[in-house]
Amino acid sequence: MMREVSIIGIGQTPVGEHWETDLRSLGIGAIRAAMEDGGIKQVDALYIGSAYGATVSSQSQIGPLIADYAGLRGVESFTIEAGDASGGAALRTGYLAVASGAVDTAVVLGVEKSTDTVGADRIAARSVSLDADYESVHGATLPALAALLMRRYMFEYGVELSAFENFSINAHANGAKNPNAMYHNLLKPGGFARAPMIADPVTLFDGAPDADGAAAVILTSREGAGNFPVKPVHIIASAAATDTLTLHDRGDLLDFEAVRLSVDKSLAQAGISRTDLDLFELHDAFTIISTLTLESAGFAVRGEGWRAAADQEISLTATLPLSTFGGLKSRGNPVGATGVYQAVEAALQLRGEAGGNQVPDAHTAMIQNMGGLGSTVITHILKS
Amino acid sequence: MMREVSIIGIGQTPVGEHWETDLRSLGIGAIRAAMEDGGIKQVDALYIGSAYGATVSSQSQIGPLIADYAGLRGVESFTIEAGDASGGAALRTGYLAVASGAVDTAVVLGVEKSTDTVGADRIAARSVSLDADYESVHGATLPALAALLMRRYMFEYGVELSAFENFSINAHANGAKNPNAMYHNLLKPGGFARAPMIADPVTLFDGAPDADGAAAVILTSREGAGNFPVKPVHIIASAAATDTLTLHDRGDLLDFEAVRLSVDKSLAQAGISRTDLDLFELHDAFTIISTLTLESAGFAVRGEGWRAAADQEISLTATLPLSTFGGLKSRGNPVGATGVYQAVEAALQLRGEAGGNQVPDAHTAMIQNMGGLGSTVITHILKS
Repeated sequence: MMREVSIIGIGQTPVGEHWETDLRSLGIGAIRAAMEDGGIKQVDALYIGSAYGATVSSQSQIGPLIADYAGLRGVESFTIEAGDASGGAALRTGYLAVASGAVDTAVVLGVEKSTDTVGADRIAARSVSLDADYESVHGATLPALAALLMRRYMFEYGVELSAFENFSINAHANGAKNPNAMYHNLLKPGGFARAPMIADPVTLFDGAPDADGAAAVILTSREGAGNFPVKPVHIIASAAATDTLTLHDRGDLLDFEAVRLSVDKSLAQAGISRTDLDLFELHDAFTIISTLTLESAGFAVRGEGWRAAADQEISLTATLPLSTFGGLKSRGNPVGATGVYQAVEAALQLRGEAGGNQVPDAHTAMIQNMGGLGSTVITHILKS
Repeated sequence: MMREVSIIGIGQTPVGEHWETDLRSLGIGAIRAAMEDGGIKQVDALYIGSAYGATVSSQSQIGPLIADYAGLRGVESFTIEAGDASGGAALRTGYLAVASGAVDTAVVLGVEKSTDTVGADRIAARSVSLDADYESVHGATLPALAALLMRRYMFEYGVELSAFENFSINAHANGAKNPNAMYHNLLKPGGFARAPMIADPVTLFDGAPDADGAAAVILTSREGAGNFPVKPVHIIASAAATDTLTLHDRGDLLDFEAVRLSVDKSLAQAGISRTDLDLFELHDAFTIISTLTLESAGFAVRGEGWRAAADQEISLTATLPLSTFGGLKSRGNPVGATGVYQAVEAALQLRGEAGGNQVPDAHTAMIQNMGGLGSTVITHILKS
């Protein structure tokens, strides 16, 4: 019988371009905030999700580095990497550690400095999560590959570019109320047609910005959670799956197989159905990812994932609110930290502490972190 | 009650400079060998220890990449990084996953291409596991810092350079019989005095070579291990600890605090004492690490760790054999793969399949993987 696992402390730093702050300081800030939130003085382990330490910051082995500076010298610590899904994979690792009984209390930290590079260096740093021998060597980038998917989708289903833009409008509407979001501006209908083009048809208002940031959650066993002051949020499912790293190896470009696998596993674990979910923090790095995710996860039929946004079914008061604190698009995408931001935001919702971003009567939340274009997908379900 | 975990398949590729082979191919080779060894067709998860994917191979997110090419498309997979301790951390992650009950059968792979760089690039790649802001920025390297420790040790205890050389002589005597070892030459007494100097007093015959390689173990629950054809090797302890990343932050340079913490935890978990161990695969990247490890782990009193080697107490037939397949020094140090090679070698010993490297009556083995100079230490105890 597995131990159940709960979140008993959360912390985050504002997302943005933190030129003045280094990797360790960002990490310490989020850990301290989470320990303060949970009234916790010491933990047994620190699991870190980070994707660009070695490349952008010339710093690997950040486990002992951040443990030491956060006042946790000596604790078990190492880093988990899965491209943009690093944070979700770290959460999964912390979950496994506590569920096993080997670790009683763990901090899961997501931390990233991704903006300390410019031009070609940034593109190179970002492209290491694609296939080095068959994709990035030819100049492929994440936005370029997302554009291929989007173009194919528009062709297959006869969908116009404007059909996707409500994903971004919704994200910015929510992000504008989130003090930790990178962007607080609102987007207006018609924006995609006027926005600078990044990789046709992906525009500046479509793709999420790379960012710096750190977020942390503290985990303990559910039976032990009552000993801590904060209302616990329970992790009732944790499921990871992979697909091919490259797009060209897939039989069906418009199907995120790993999304389906991990969502199905997570729902089975939790013993709930899709209609039981009160919100879904999905990996909205591009609106085509949101669209294909809703379809592959079974929230929409094929070719109609965009309708959820177009029909305004994703706002805070809708049936399935998405990106409730702004998502990757407006909160920002601090890469290896993003999956932990999702956990922090879902916990705020389930604790009823989301302020202006609160989803009414939120009791059950799905969070999903993705590496590449559906190559690594890690899904958790949280419940208050 | 935690599930106990067993190793039911092992595989390794020869260690060396594999200019002709890429990261994915190395990884696939070891996974296939382990699955063939164990007669296993499918697993639930793939956890990968690797330190230099993003830097040396411009490839991160290798979980889905290697899973796909190894015929495991879809399974849970991500990478674990802890500098040179990445392999041990991956083994720890696989152990936690199976112990939790969330995963029934997992492959733990260590894979590294570390030699596809030359000159300053290689030094830079190697130095990212030191503190970027306080060590590597000043030109510090692992050999240079090991040299500082060794010089201090020689000064404090009045020990001559030649006192350490039997660690290397023993490693090469064992490695010469290991078909997967990088070096098969024997070292002779007096070698340290004649060897080219790397970083005074660390010589070429003292430090372990960076290398390429991959090793894999397959884990399942102990109660399920009987359903597989291979004699299982049980993981009776798994313990990780950290120390400061930098040497200059330590109160006592000649004490590996994380070695003591993880060894003490592992012995307590296993419910055994040091004298129950039949062999110890330690992280012999430098002879000063072997020396300080034996002292900090409680196998020798302070200032006398070198005596174990000098008195020939570390050979295959001695009380506590070290580096039984050549260790990092002679088998080679494929960085993020090293910790998994240690597990494969210990399993061979405990299965009685070590051939010319066999330790007589080997039933209990400790393996220890280290990141930096004692910054991350991960210890496992295996039992047949």
